[in-house]
Amino acid sequence: MTHTAVAQTPPRTLALQARSTVTALATLATADKNRWLQMLAEALRAAVDAVVSANLQDLAAARQSGMSEAMLDRLRLDEPRIQSLATAVQQICALPDPVGEVISGERRPNGLQVSRVRVPLGVVFFIYESRPNVTVDAAALCVKSGNPVILRGGSEAIRTNLELGRLITETLAAAGLPEHAVQVVGSTDRQLVGEFLQMSDLISLAIPRGGRSLIERVVREAAMPVLKHFDGVCHVFVDQSAELQMALDIVINSKCQRPAVCNAAETLLLHVNAAELWPALAAALQQRGVELRCCERSRAGIAGAVVATEQDYRTEHGALILNVRIVDSLAEAIEHIRTYGSGHTDAIVTRCLEAAGHFESAVDSSAVVINASTRFNDGGELGLGAEIGISTDRFHARGPCGLRELTTYKYVIRGTGQVRG
Amino acid sequence: MTHTAVAQTPPRTLALQARSTVTALATLATADKNRWLQMLAEALRAAVDAVVSANLQDLAAARQSGMSEAMLDRLRLDEPRIQSLATAVQQICALPDPVGEVISGERRPNGLQVSRVRVPLGVVFFIYESRPNVTVDAAALCVKSGNPVILRGGSEAIRTNLELGRLITETLAAAGLPEHAVQVVGSTDRQLVGEFLQMSDLISLAIPRGGRSLIERVVREAAMPVLKHFDGVCHVFVDQSAELQMALDIVINSKCQRPAVCNAAETLLLHVNAAELWPALAAALQQRGVELRCCERSRAGIAGAVVATEQDYRTEHGALILNVRIVDSLAEAIEHIRTYGSGHTDAIVTRCLEAAGHFESAVDSSAVVINASTRFNDGGELGLGAEIGISTDRFHARGPCGLRELTTYKYVIRGTGQVRG
Repeated sequence: MTHTAVAQTPPRTLALQARSTVTALATLATADKNRWLQMLAEALRAAVDAVVSANLQDLAAARQSGMSEAMLDRLRLDEPRIQSLATAVQQICALPDPVGEVISGERRPNGLQVSRVRVPLGVVFFIYESRPNVTVDAAALCVKSGNPVILRGGSEAIRTNLELGRLITETLAAAGLPEHAVQVVGSTDRQLVGEFLQMSDLISLAIPRGGRSLIERVVREAAMPVLKHFDGVCHVFVDQSAELQMALDIVINSKCQRPAVCNAAETLLLHVNAAELWPALAAALQQRGVELRCCERSRAGIAGAVVATEQDYRTEHGALILNVRIVDSLAEAIEHIRTYGSGHTDAIVTRCLEAAGHFESAVDSSAVVINASTRFNDGGELGLGAEIGISTDRFHARGPCGLRELTTYKYVIRGTGQVRG
Repeated sequence: MTHTAVAQTPPRTLALQARSTVTALATLATADKNRWLQMLAEALRAAVDAVVSANLQDLAAARQSGMSEAMLDRLRLDEPRIQSLATAVQQICALPDPVGEVISGERRPNGLQVSRVRVPLGVVFFIYESRPNVTVDAAALCVKSGNPVILRGGSEAIRTNLELGRLITETLAAAGLPEHAVQVVGSTDRQLVGEFLQMSDLISLAIPRGGRSLIERVVREAAMPVLKHFDGVCHVFVDQSAELQMALDIVINSKCQRPAVCNAAETLLLHVNAAELWPALAAALQQRGVELRCCERSRAGIAGAVVATEQDYRTEHGALILNVRIVDSLAEAIEHIRTYGSGHTDAIVTRCLEAAGHFESAVDSSAVVINASTRFNDGGELGLGAEIGISTDRFHARGPCGLRELTTYKYVIRGTGQVRG
C-alpha cells in the first residue's frame, strides 16, 4: 500500500475497516499482541534511517514555514528518540493484558454465576499534534488493549507518521494481526476530522491530545464520548507545620523540574505561620529563573516579584512563572484551590495528620498529593505503565489513562436454566 | 418553601444551589445518609394521604387530556405502591456506601503510597417521564452515592413530584443534610431542560430515563456526559445441543414474563438441528398470546405465523411479538446478533461447552447470558441493589447502573517528601 493510496481512502472507509477488526482484536491472545509489539520494536530499530529521513523532510518543511525552535524540537525524531520509542513499545509489551480480566464475580442466591469481564472499548479515533512518537505509543496501547485505532497526527509530521504507519502495518501483517487494526490517516485535510467525529455508529471514543483549542473543537464536534485532557492549574499548599527543607524541595520540584507539563505547579499557597521560610524559598526559586507573581503579603520584601492578577491564579503558565499567595488557614487554601484550580493535581506539605486528612477529603482533584511533588501524577509514576492521556473528566476515568482505562466490561451470566418468577 | 417558590427558581440558581452542596455531600458519613433514608421511608408511609391526593389530581388532569389507560397506570401512586417505594428506600439504605472505597492501592518503588479512592461524580441532572416513584428512587440513589441531584419529572406528574419533593426536602433538613442536595424542578417548561443541559460547568452528568426521543434530545443538547439507555433488541439463541425443556422455559420467560421491558427477548434464533422443538415451542408461545414473525423456514407449518421483515429484526417490539429465524450454525447466530442486535442482552441455550465459550467471547453485549433468561440483566438480579438506569454505552459503565456507577475515583498519593529526579 502506497502513501498515496492511504491518503485517498475516505474517512468512512477507514472507519469501516477499523470496525471490521473489532471482534478479531477483542479476542486476540495476549501472546499474539505481544509478538506484534516485539516485532514493532525491532522494526523501529531496523528502520532508523528511513524514519529519520522522513522526519528530516518534515523538519525542513516546518522550518521553511517558520516553525519555532521549541516546536521543531517536538517534531524531531532522531536515532536516540527512536531507540526510546522502541523501548517504550517493549515496556507496553511487558504490561499485563487488561482484556479478559474478571473484575468481580459472585454466585447469586438463585445459583446464577455473575461476573464482570473486561473487554475493549471499540474503535478509537486518536487526534494529536506535533510529536510523532505518539503515533507509535497510541498504536501500541490501543492494540494491546484490544482496540482498533485511527491515528490522525499533525500535518507538520505527516511524512514521519506515514513512515511509522508503514512499519506498523507491515508488522501487523507479519505478526498475523488484522492490518486495519491501526490506520494512519494519510490526508491532512482538517475537514476530514469533522467527518470522523460524526461517526458515532463506528467509532466508540475520540481522544484529542494537544492544545486547548484542539480539545475544545473535538468536544464540540464529537458525537461519541471524548477522553478530555484540559488544563492543569496545580497547587502546592505549604501548611504551618511543614518541614522547611521538604517544603523547599517539593515546591521547587513541582515548579521547576519540567515547567511545561500539565502536572507542574502553577501556584504556591503558603500558610501565614510558615511565611518565615518564604524569603529563602523565593530566593531559591528566583535563582532557578522563576518569575514570582505574588499577593500583597508575599510580595513584601521580595525584589523582582510582581503583583499576581486574578487571571494569573487561573492560568496554566506552562513556564517558569509561579503565583504565590499567603493564606491564613487550611480552609482558605482549600477554598482557593476550589475557586481557581482545575481539579488536576494538588499537593499539601504538612506534618499534621488532621490537616492532611482534611486536605485529602476536601480537595476533589484527580490526584491529591500529601508530602510529595505534583509531578508524580503521571501514568508511569503511578504504576500504569504507559498512558494514552490524562483525563480531566470525572466520567469513565480520571487522571492518567493507561491500558485499563481503554477498556469497559460486560456482564457474563452463567445459569443452569434459571428463569425469572 | 412553597411549590410556587420552587417553580419560580431559575435553572441556574437551582444548579448553583446543587453545586454548593457538592463537598458537604461528598464527605457525609454513611450513617448520616442512612439516617435520612430511614426518615424518608417513614415520612413516605406517614404521608400516604397527601401523596395519593396530589397523585389523584395528576391522574384527573391526565385523564381529561386523554391519556391512555396504560400510561395512567404508570402515573398512578396508590397506597401499596407508596409502601413499596418506602421499602425500596430502606433497601438502598441497607446497601454499602460506595464513597471512600479504596479500589486499589500499592506502594511504589520510591515509597509513595498510591491508592484510588471512590468519590461521587458531582451534580446529576435527572430527567424522566411519567412514573413518579422514580423521583424518590433517584433521590435516594444519588444522595447515598454522595451526588446532589436535580429532578425534572414529566409534566403529567408535577403535583405528585412536588409533594414527594416536599417530603424529601423536609427530611433532608430534619436529618441535618443540605436541603439543596435534592431539588425537584417546579416548572414544566420544556425550554428549561435545554438550559440545564448547557450547564456543564455546574452539572457533571445528565441521566435521561424515558422513550427514545427523550434520550435522543438529551444526547443532542447535553454539554455534559449522558448516561444513555437506548433500545434492548435482545436475542435468545437455541443451540443444537440445547436441552428442550430448558430452551422452552428460557424462551417463554425471556419473551413473556414482562414483554414491555428492555431485557425482554425480541428475537429467537433456532439452530436448524434444534428445529424439531419448534412446533411445540411455537404452540406454547401462541398459547400465551405471542405473535410470531418468522423467517421462511420457521414459518412453515405454523398456523398464524407471519413473515418477519428486515425491520422486525431491528425492532424492540416491547410487546408480545417475537421474531423467529432458523440459522444453520452458531456463527450465523452470532452474525445475526451483531447485525441486528443493540448490544443489550443476548442469551444462548446450549449443553456444549465450546459453543458457550465462543458465544460468550464473540457476542459483545452488556450482558451475555448462558442458559438463563435474558430477564436477569437487571440491577436487582445482578446484585447491585437498586439501579438508576441501564447503560447501553460502552464508556464509564455498562449495563445496570447502581450506586457504584454513580461514582468516579481520585488518586491519593502519600509521600514523605519525594520529588521527581
